[in-house]
Amino acid sequence: MTKELPFNKEKLDKILEQYPTPFHIYEEKAIIENAKRFLKAFEWNKDFKEFFAVKATPNPFILKILKEVGFGADCSSLTELLLAEKTDITGEEIMFTSNNTPAEEYEKARELNAIINLDDISHIPFLAEHGGIPNLISFRYNPGSRREGNFIMGNPSEVKYGFTKKQIFIGLKELDSKGVQRFGLHTFIASNQLDLQYFVDTAEMMFKLAVEVKERLNIRLEFVNIGGGIGIPYHPEEEAVDLELMGRGIKLKYEEIIKGNNLHPLAVYMECGRMITGPYGYLVSKAIHKKDIYKKHIGLDASMNDLMRPGIYDAYHHITVMGKEEEAKTETYDVTGSLCESIDRFAVDRKLPKIDVGDTFVIHDTGAHGHAMGFNYNGKLRGGELLLREDGQVIEIRRAETVEDYFRTLDFEKLKKFKQ
Amino acid sequence: MTKELPFNKEKLDKILEQYPTPFHIYEEKAIIENAKRFLKAFEWNKDFKEFFAVKATPNPFILKILKEVGFGADCSSLTELLLAEKTDITGEEIMFTSNNTPAEEYEKARELNAIINLDDISHIPFLAEHGGIPNLISFRYNPGSRREGNFIMGNPSEVKYGFTKKQIFIGLKELDSKGVQRFGLHTFIASNQLDLQYFVDTAEMMFKLAVEVKERLNIRLEFVNIGGGIGIPYHPEEEAVDLELMGRGIKLKYEEIIKGNNLHPLAVYMECGRMITGPYGYLVSKAIHKKDIYKKHIGLDASMNDLMRPGIYDAYHHITVMGKEEEAKTETYDVTGSLCESIDRFAVDRKLPKIDVGDTFVIHDTGAHGHAMGFNYNGKLRGGELLLREDGQVIEIRRAETVEDYFRTLDFEKLKKFKQ
Repeated sequence: MTKELPFNKEKLDKILEQYPTPFHIYEEKAIIENAKRFLKAFEWNKDFKEFFAVKATPNPFILKILKEVGFGADCSSLTELLLAEKTDITGEEIMFTSNNTPAEEYEKARELNAIINLDDISHIPFLAEHGGIPNLISFRYNPGSRREGNFIMGNPSEVKYGFTKKQIFIGLKELDSKGVQRFGLHTFIASNQLDLQYFVDTAEMMFKLAVEVKERLNIRLEFVNIGGGIGIPYHPEEEAVDLELMGRGIKLKYEEIIKGNNLHPLAVYMECGRMITGPYGYLVSKAIHKKDIYKKHIGLDASMNDLMRPGIYDAYHHITVMGKEEEAKTETYDVTGSLCESIDRFAVDRKLPKIDVGDTFVIHDTGAHGHAMGFNYNGKLRGGELLLREDGQVIEIRRAETVEDYFRTLDFEKLKKFKQ
Repeated sequence: MTKELPFNKEKLDKILEQYPTPFHIYEEKAIIENAKRFLKAFEWNKDFKEFFAVKATPNPFILKILKEVGFGADCSSLTELLLAEKTDITGEEIMFTSNNTPAEEYEKARELNAIINLDDISHIPFLAEHGGIPNLISFRYNPGSRREGNFIMGNPSEVKYGFTKKQIFIGLKELDSKGVQRFGLHTFIASNQLDLQYFVDTAEMMFKLAVEVKERLNIRLEFVNIGGGIGIPYHPEEEAVDLELMGRGIKLKYEEIIKGNNLHPLAVYMECGRMITGPYGYLVSKAIHKKDIYKKHIGLDASMNDLMRPGIYDAYHHITVMGKEEEAKTETYDVTGSLCESIDRFAVDRKLPKIDVGDTFVIHDTGAHGHAMGFNYNGKLRGGELLLREDGQVIEIRRAETVEDYFRTLDFEKLKKFKQ
C-alpha cells in the first residue's frame, strides 16, 4: 500500500537544491483543509473551539496558520504560552492545560488572560497565590476506573492527571462560593485513538457530568473540553477517524443529554494536536550508507534526534523512497540513524525497493510529535522545518541546529581557567 | 537500604541558596578516585587506555578532569570531537567510534588524528574518500549469534553495529595490502552489565580473535578495545562490578591467550561511560506539588527533560529526601515531572517518607546518560550542571537553558511578515 505525497521526486529535488537534508516539511494547504474539515464537523455547536496542542508542533508559523482558520492554542508550559503570545494568540484563545504546574507558568497564563484548566484540587490555593483565581476556570477530570485508557496514555487511574469526581464537585462548590462565575470541565484520557466511538463516549461522559453539576450544584457549565487524542493512520492500512461521523455522534449525545436537560447552549472544546498536523508533515532524509551484516541496514542522515517515536514507542512510520514508488519491494531493511543507541532506527524489517546510497527517503506522518520530541543525545544536531506553501513555494520556518547552538550553555573561557 | 551522598542537608541548602533547582551536580573527588581505581585494575597492561564515552556526560569540565587522570575520549559525532578538541584531547587520545558516519565527521576525526574505529566494511572506501585512510585503524567486531546481548543493547545479530567475522578478515587483508601498518579491533555488545564475567568473556573473545588474525593474516594487532557497558548499581541492593576482580580475570585470559601465543604486548582499551561518572552525579529537585487522586503523586520541579531513563526504560533511580533520610518510609508515591506525557515520572509506587511541598529530592546515579539525554518536549527547559570540587566549592559547569535558547532556531521577524 502507498501513501500520498504533496510533491513528486522532481519537485522535492528542487527543494533539496536549496535545503540540505534532513528536515521536516509541512504542507500548508492540507493542514488548512483538514483544520476546516474538523471545524465543519462541529459547526452544529455554535461556540465549538479547537485549541491546537502546541506541544505537537511548537512552531509559531504553524500556530499562525491555524489561528487564521479559527483555532486557539492549548499550552502546557511557559515557552508554549510565550509562543502563543508571539503569534498574537491571547486571552480565551489560549487553553492552559498543564500539570504539576510551576508558579511562574500560572502567572504568565494569568497575565495573558488564558483559560486556566486546573489539573488538581490543590492548585486552587496555589493559583490563588500565583496569579489569582480568574472569573472563568476549568478543571481536568480523571474518571479513574470508570474509563479505560490506551497504550500511550496508560490507565486513567494510574496516571498523574486530573481531579477525581468527588474533587470536581468539591472544587466547583468552593470556587462558586468564592464568586467565580464561569466554569468549564475538561478531560483527556487517550492518545492516538482511531476509534471514533471513544470520543463519542467521552463527550457523553462529560455531558452527563455537566448535567450532574447543574443538578447537584446548580452550576451551569460554559463549556466541556473533551481533550484531544484523535489518532492518525500511521499504517497505510489504517483509516483516519471520520470527523463528520464523529461530530454527528457527539451531536446526538448533545441533543439527548444537553438539550434534553435544558443545558443548551454548551460549548464543546477540543485540544487535538496529532490529527491536525501529523499526517501533513514529512521527515526528508538521504541514505548515506548501506550495510550488510546479519541483517541489511540502510543508514540515513537523519537520526532519532529528528524523530523519536519509532525508537521510543516502536511506532510505525511509513516510508516512501522517492523515484522508486513503483518498484517492487524486494528487500528487507532496518532503516537507522547514526546514534550510538540501538533503538536509533526508523524502521525494522521494512520491505522496500532496492536502495542505493543517495536515495531520498520520505518518512511520513512526522507533522506532530516529530521535531518537537527530538533530543541532542550523542551531540547530534536536529534538522530544520520547512513549509510548503499553498502556492508551491517553500520557506524555512525553523533553521537547523548548529554546533554553536549545541555549545551555547557551556562557558569555554571558564574551562580554560579550570584546573584540578 | 540507603545510598551515600557527598553532602548533607545543610551543605546542600547552602548550594541551593546560590543555584535554584533543578540541576545535576557531580562529585569531582569520587569521579577521580573511581577513575584511578579503574586504571589500577588494568595496571598489569602497560598500554591500557580508557576512552571515556563522551555521550554519557558531554561536559568539557568532566572531560578535563578525566584527561588529568589519564583518560582519552570516545567520540561518536562531530560535536563530541569538537568537545574533545576544546578540552585539548586530540590525536590517539581520541577513539572515534561512530556508526552510519557522515562524511564531515570522518573528516574532522582525521584532522584531529583520532583513532578511527570503523563500523562497517563499506566505510573503508568511504573513509578513503572523506579524510583518507590513516596508518592506524580499528574495526568494530559484531559477533552476531556467537554472543548474547542484553536488554538495552539488543542481540548482537539484530543491531546495526560492526563487521561480521568474515568482514573483519576481508577488511584487515585489504588495508594490510594497501600498506596500513597499525591495527586494532573493537567490540561493544552489552550496556549496563553488572556481571564482570561478561567482560572477561568479551576480552577472551577479542584475544582469540587477535590470535586468529595473526595466524591467518600475519597481522599483529596493536590493541583490542573491549568497549564499555560496565553497569552501575542503580538499586541500593545491587553491587558494583569489582573492577580489580574483573581486571584480574582479564589478565588471566591475557596471559593464557596473548602471552601464550607470543602476542605480548597487546594494549587493552575500554570505552566506558556510565560507570565512570554515573554514580557520582545527582539530580537535585524540589517537590512543588502533592496530589492525592487514585494514587498519590509528588510533583517535582524537574521533569523527564532532565532525566529520561525512568520514562523511556522504566529504569530505577534511587531517591533520597534531604533531612528525611532516617524517617520511616510510610508512604507510596509516584514521583512525577510536569510534562503532558504519562511517562514523565521519576519513580512509580516508591516507598518514601511523608513528603511536604518544598522538600528537596536527590535522584541518584544521574552522572551518566542524565542531562545528556534530555529533550525540550513540551517546551520545558533543562536545568544546568554543577561540580562539587574536591575542596568543597561548587562551580557551575553548564548553565540552565533559557527561553532564548529554546527560541533560538526561530525567526520571529520573519513570522511578523508571514501571511496566509
